[in-house]
Amino acid sequence: MHASRIMPFLVLVTLASSATAVDPPKPLLGFGAGTAVEQFALETRFDAALNRDDLREWMKRISARPHHVGSPYDKENAEFIAGLFREWGFDTQIEEFRVLYPPPKSRLLEMVAPTSFKASLVEPPLAEDSTSGQTSEQLPIFNAYSIDGDVTADLVYVNHGIPKDYEELERRGIDVRGKIVIARYGGSWRGIKPKVAAEKGAIGCIIYSDPREDGYFDGDVYPKGGYRNDHSAQRGSVADMPLYSGDPLTPFIGATPDAHRLDVKDAKTLTKIPVLPIYAADALPLLQALGGQMAPESWRGALPIPYHLGPGPTKVHLAVTFDWKQAPIYDVIAKIPGSERPDEWIVRGNHHDAWVNGATDPVSGLVAELGEARALGLLRKGGWKPKRTIVYAAWDGEEPGLLGSTEWVETHADELRTKVAVYVNSDSNARGTLEVGGSHTLETFANQVARDVVDPEKNISVLDRARAEAILDAKEEERKEVRERTDLRIHPLGSGSDYTPFLQHLGIAALNIGYGGESEYGQYHSIYDSFDHYVRFGDPSFDYGVALAKTGGRMVLRLADAEVLPFEFTRFTGELGRYLKEVIKLLDDLRAEIDEKNRRIEDGTYAATFDPTKTFVVPRPEPPVPFLNFAPLQNALVALEKSTKANEKAILERLASGQALSPDAQRALDLVLMKSERMLTRSEGLPRRPWYVHQIYAPGFYTGYGVKTLPGVREAIEEKHWKEAEEQIEFEAQTIAAFAAEVERATAIVRGDSRN
Amino acid sequence: MHASRIMPFLVLVTLASSATAVDPPKPLLGFGAGTAVEQFALETRFDAALNRDDLREWMKRISARPHHVGSPYDKENAEFIAGLFREWGFDTQIEEFRVLYPPPKSRLLEMVAPTSFKASLVEPPLAEDSTSGQTSEQLPIFNAYSIDGDVTADLVYVNHGIPKDYEELERRGIDVRGKIVIARYGGSWRGIKPKVAAEKGAIGCIIYSDPREDGYFDGDVYPKGGYRNDHSAQRGSVADMPLYSGDPLTPFIGATPDAHRLDVKDAKTLTKIPVLPIYAADALPLLQALGGQMAPESWRGALPIPYHLGPGPTKVHLAVTFDWKQAPIYDVIAKIPGSERPDEWIVRGNHHDAWVNGATDPVSGLVAELGEARALGLLRKGGWKPKRTIVYAAWDGEEPGLLGSTEWVETHADELRTKVAVYVNSDSNARGTLEVGGSHTLETFANQVARDVVDPEKNISVLDRARAEAILDAKEEERKEVRERTDLRIHPLGSGSDYTPFLQHLGIAALNIGYGGESEYGQYHSIYDSFDHYVRFGDPSFDYGVALAKTGGRMVLRLADAEVLPFEFTRFTGELGRYLKEVIKLLDDLRAEIDEKNRRIEDGTYAATFDPTKTFVVPRPEPPVPFLNFAPLQNALVALEKSTKANEKAILERLASGQALSPDAQRALDLVLMKSERMLTRSEGLPRRPWYVHQIYAPGFYTGYGVKTLPGVREAIEEKHWKEAEEQIEFEAQTIAAFAAEVERATAIVRGDSRN
Repeated sequence: MHASRIMPFLVLVTLASSATAVDPPKPLLGFGAGTAVEQFALETRFDAALNRDDLREWMKRISARPHHVGSPYDKENAEFIAGLFREWGFDTQIEEFRVLYPPPKSRLLEMVAPTSFKASLVEPPLAEDSTSGQTSEQLPIFNAYSIDGDVTADLVYVNHGIPKDYEELERRGIDVRGKIVIARYGGSWRGIKPKVAAEKGAIGCIIYSDPREDGYFDGDVYPKGGYRNDHSAQRGSVADMPLYSGDPLTPFIGATPDAHRLDVKDAKTLTKIPVLPIYAADALPLLQALGGQMAPESWRGALPIPYHLGPGPTKVHLAVTFDWKQAPIYDVIAKIPGSERPDEWIVRGNHHDAWVNGATDPVSGLVAELGEARALGLLRKGGWKPKRTIVYAAWDGEEPGLLGSTEWVETHADELRTKVAVYVNSDSNARGTLEVGGSHTLETFANQVARDVVDPEKNISVLDRARAEAILDAKEEERKEVRERTDLRIHPLGSGSDYTPFLQHLGIAALNIGYGGESEYGQYHSIYDSFDHYVRFGDPSFDYGVALAKTGGRMVLRLADAEVLPFEFTRFTGELGRYLKEVIKLLDDLRAEIDEKNRRIEDGTYAATFDPTKTFVVPRPEPPVPFLNFAPLQNALVALEKSTKANEKAILERLASGQALSPDAQRALDLVLMKSERMLTRSEGLPRRPWYVHQIYAPGFYTGYGVKTLPGVREAIEEKHWKEAEEQIEFEAQTIAAFAAEVERATAIVRGDSRN
Repeated sequence: MHASRIMPFLVLVTLASSATAVDPPKPLLGFGAGTAVEQFALETRFDAALNRDDLREWMKRISARPHHVGSPYDKENAEFIAGLFREWGFDTQIEEFRVLYPPPKSRLLEMVAPTSFKASLVEPPLAEDSTSGQTSEQLPIFNAYSIDGDVTADLVYVNHGIPKDYEELERRGIDVRGKIVIARYGGSWRGIKPKVAAEKGAIGCIIYSDPREDGYFDGDVYPKGGYRNDHSAQRGSVADMPLYSGDPLTPFIGATPDAHRLDVKDAKTLTKIPVLPIYAADALPLLQALGGQMAPESWRGALPIPYHLGPGPTKVHLAVTFDWKQAPIYDVIAKIPGSERPDEWIVRGNHHDAWVNGATDPVSGLVAELGEARALGLLRKGGWKPKRTIVYAAWDGEEPGLLGSTEWVETHADELRTKVAVYVNSDSNARGTLEVGGSHTLETFANQVARDVVDPEKNISVLDRARAEAILDAKEEERKEVRERTDLRIHPLGSGSDYTPFLQHLGIAALNIGYGGESEYGQYHSIYDSFDHYVRFGDPSFDYGVALAKTGGRMVLRLADAEVLPFEFTRFTGELGRYLKEVIKLLDDLRAEIDEKNRRIEDGTYAATFDPTKTFVVPRPEPPVPFLNFAPLQNALVALEKSTKANEKAILERLASGQALSPDAQRALDLVLMKSERMLTRSEGLPRRPWYVHQIYAPGFYTGYGVKTLPGVREAIEEKHWKEAEEQIEFEAQTIAAFAAEVERATAIVRGDSRN
């Protein structure tokens, strides 16, 4: 798509910035020429109200003590944050939910053969890290939502523990049934590891931090550098979030005091086998004692040992029990009412709970959000009133499973479906390059925001920096497009932070923003994710905290004040075309792969090559991959392209006519636009996971955080469910047709008004 | 090229093997139907005369003590081998040369800052390895042909120490001038590391064995497994062999007692700076203490540390002195005279010297060669007489620099140029897949040999196994060709063993053969390359030793007995076309790369992205890459294709006529064929290295062992010498034209005779 084709809704703005009168006009999606000038001026005042010292002080305060779900400081933080919002003039409340939250009662991991070793499972305090010694308040190393268990068995190393790793093991004649597996962090979201292990028949799962992932392989370890030392572990949730996020006992409904709750035994997102995360120093003896074949080359980490697969002779005893209690969570919800369209909401969120002190995760993002809120408060004192309602949220319970955001979304689902136009999320933040993910109807909008934020290190726009990065990262054949495409691509969202319930459960257009790439990032979910760590290795000056506030704040300001919501359909349609090509290619590639495998089996190619001193199981031939009927999706896409083009044409005609839309028409258009993302959902949801209703973006059933676009079709192909794939093609075609109809409704408003 | 296009010279053979009368006819290049039947029968008798227990006993005997150049056991081995050849009826002599051979007098490596550490430089004896305790006879850890030196300086880690590594350092603002560099083994031949380091201004060079290369990263280390333990070092030559191989003091001439010798100071192949190889345990403290930026990700090895680049704070003191003496070397040369064409020689060689005990390198290949010789002796006793002269050679002094083969070749250059048809080389051998490199005029010949040797593990031909391996290794786009091409590709030869003086200094067609890929190969050039190691991890049954003897023996038998030498030109011509495409693409890729780099500089793309807390030097723009005139080479290739096709047609016509060539015509044809490879040389040699005269194959000036095809053009492009590149295009075009003329001479004989 060329620059000239991408037109904002209704108006291109000619704007001379105050500094350089010769600047070319800057378009501002959703604004008319006059209002855009006002908007840029407002943003200048907004920027001036941001203060990096505030961010630093708030981080120090909020990360001063461990503040996980159920801890005293978690509640204190919620109250502190609510107090700030109130002070800044927000209509603020704390919404409380009660969720299943099982901290560990006992944890034991020991090697019982061929030698004895007991894992210490304790991260030592460091003199260089002033909060690391708060041992009485720290959550021990554990994975939330593991079930209780006491198992003893031979150990098998399973690499990242994703399905294709088990295919490799199978080829080597290794079966994990009745075994305990040890997987390294990385390659998938952690919850996938015990899920797949249990499917394969393993009876326990250990997840360890290999120094290859974020330890000494990457740089000096903490406290000398910022990377993970050998005694630093990664806590984290292992709930089966690709089924549903939020409280395991209350899927689909808010975890209010009187909500109907499942029995713990019926909660489908709990693991099927006991799980425990450990650090490298505890993993080393277990892995070092493993025998059997060598792991494939790409499986080998950075420990100074040959990586064997087992099973055995390492035999381990893993025993974990948890306190299956309920705990309160505290969402802080702070509103500024809209002056003209109060029933159109822009929601901005970041979580406040952490695994321990959580200076980076989540406080680095949270303090930027607070900076925005304070600045909005100051603008209001200066007389500014947003057109639409602004809602700032500080979520609790994100870490165990997006609990705070999900329960709030489920509780207020009907209202939110009606009122929320866009959700803007952030989480951890650090020095580096802007990364944006989200709904592609907001791609141009996000690009315009990035265009207008200056990078603190480079004195160019954060968009130009991100584009330069993308040019350096691009494959040769993609480079030209990265250079010449007007907008830089934003990536589709899977899961991993609080946008999931908004986007994928309700169908609310969402953006996720953050800076990073230059920090020494080895503290994730450990006791060393501290203020002391952050100010050395994260963003010492807090300049990128301010940059995030400028980015998130601009998004909120523009979304709240635009004459018409700044959605744009050509980008989305273009992306959809890419995804469709991808799934067609996926099927073709799978066919070629299976044909090739079958041919190798038939020709004896495997048999001719494997080393007879090692076990090798020649795979069984598979049925060939059929051709599927993609025509419904292809036709739906063509129709959507037509609708999108007509929409674009209507906008250009409207611009040429010089006649603005009437306020009523603007509002009517808004209502259509804000619901366009809702058209991308299907109330029955995805196969085997009805909670996920979005038909274009979903977290992968076997990747967890990793996104699957056109998930119904894509995962059916990946799992070789051919009949389901064809059904899903139909469903997704219907979804796209419904979306096209919504685009046409928008076009009619734009066009109809202009012809009146 | 299709199967039907590949015709042997003169005759396709219809042969029913004794076992299965329904076998399809097996073509045998160079033989008529009747003689082929005899030949196959002879090979069956040859195979029966091979005995794996012999190989085992000879290896035990020859590797029983250290037998490097100048050692008592080196001479004893030469005499033992000569004795065997004599016993088997060969006309045998030991040819002695005197070469510069400087063993170390003193070696010191110590870290003097930031802490103290002295490298121990001693490989410890192991109870599990019965020869590892022969400390009084072992050569210490050193690199042959390092100069003396005593230097102290800050250390810089330079990865593999090849030119592009220094470009990376430059981008990070790191200059090695006045520094000592530490490079890891791998990525190039070791001699390139000090050569490039000196060019860049370093004053000393340490080369260490990273466990990523052949240590615990690959598997259990010796003695538990076969891989390199942390106290095992790699000795090896660092002479600048891409200039010339052989005695540094006698380039171009044999190192006979009265030869004119250069002063040591004038020997161009000695290093310019002192060099010392060390093992991982000695490298670890030096690398661990290094500071500065992190090394790029692909530079990081398997030591459990963050790999920093320096310079410093690690400061090292490196001091080495050598005994600049001359030493005798003993080539064993054993002949069987040809009965019909005594002045056409087939030479077969493998070296006998080792760095220490050398069971794998070179004895595993040597004992196969001895097995062949013994079997040939038995065949002769049974009445067989080869048509051509067979020369078996056991070279001395290969390890320090192909000394024995080079000095013999230089001494007898005129006679060898006239008489030698083909040289067949082997070196280390182990369990696994056949690998063949060599002149592409022998590709079909080599394939036919591989077709007729049965793999001991798989009971299929070693060709079929190698092809299956190639199918598994192939990129998707190459797979079809690997499957369908009649012949499996043999790879072009660079350097690294004794074929170099034959092929690249004299222009004698050569083959290099060996099995491998299934051994645990971590003993290279250490004291642990022992009989005990080999019979556990190399080829315990010696079945692959026998397979190598069957392969090498068949080559010798067929080359010696063929009615016409089994050269074939279409394969060579096809390869040449590939190489020409490669060099044209190389220029285009370089142009695109430099254009892209210049654009990034101009656009500020680098400036927009680098982390300002780290040093980054934006590269300087380079002049754009010109277009070069490849037409002379392209036209020469087209002419050669025409000549090759005419030749093929003449052979087919001859076959169709049913009239065999007369013995005189056969001999005349032989003389043309055996000189065809000589046509590929240019007496002035390659730019800056006149010793290397072959215009198609050469070791890379900056890769060492790695081959450069069309080296004159290719390296001129790589080094951006545009004028030289165009000159070299002309020279190589002339070379190809001369070769085409030789092909036409062969055609005339084939055709002329048929028309008589």
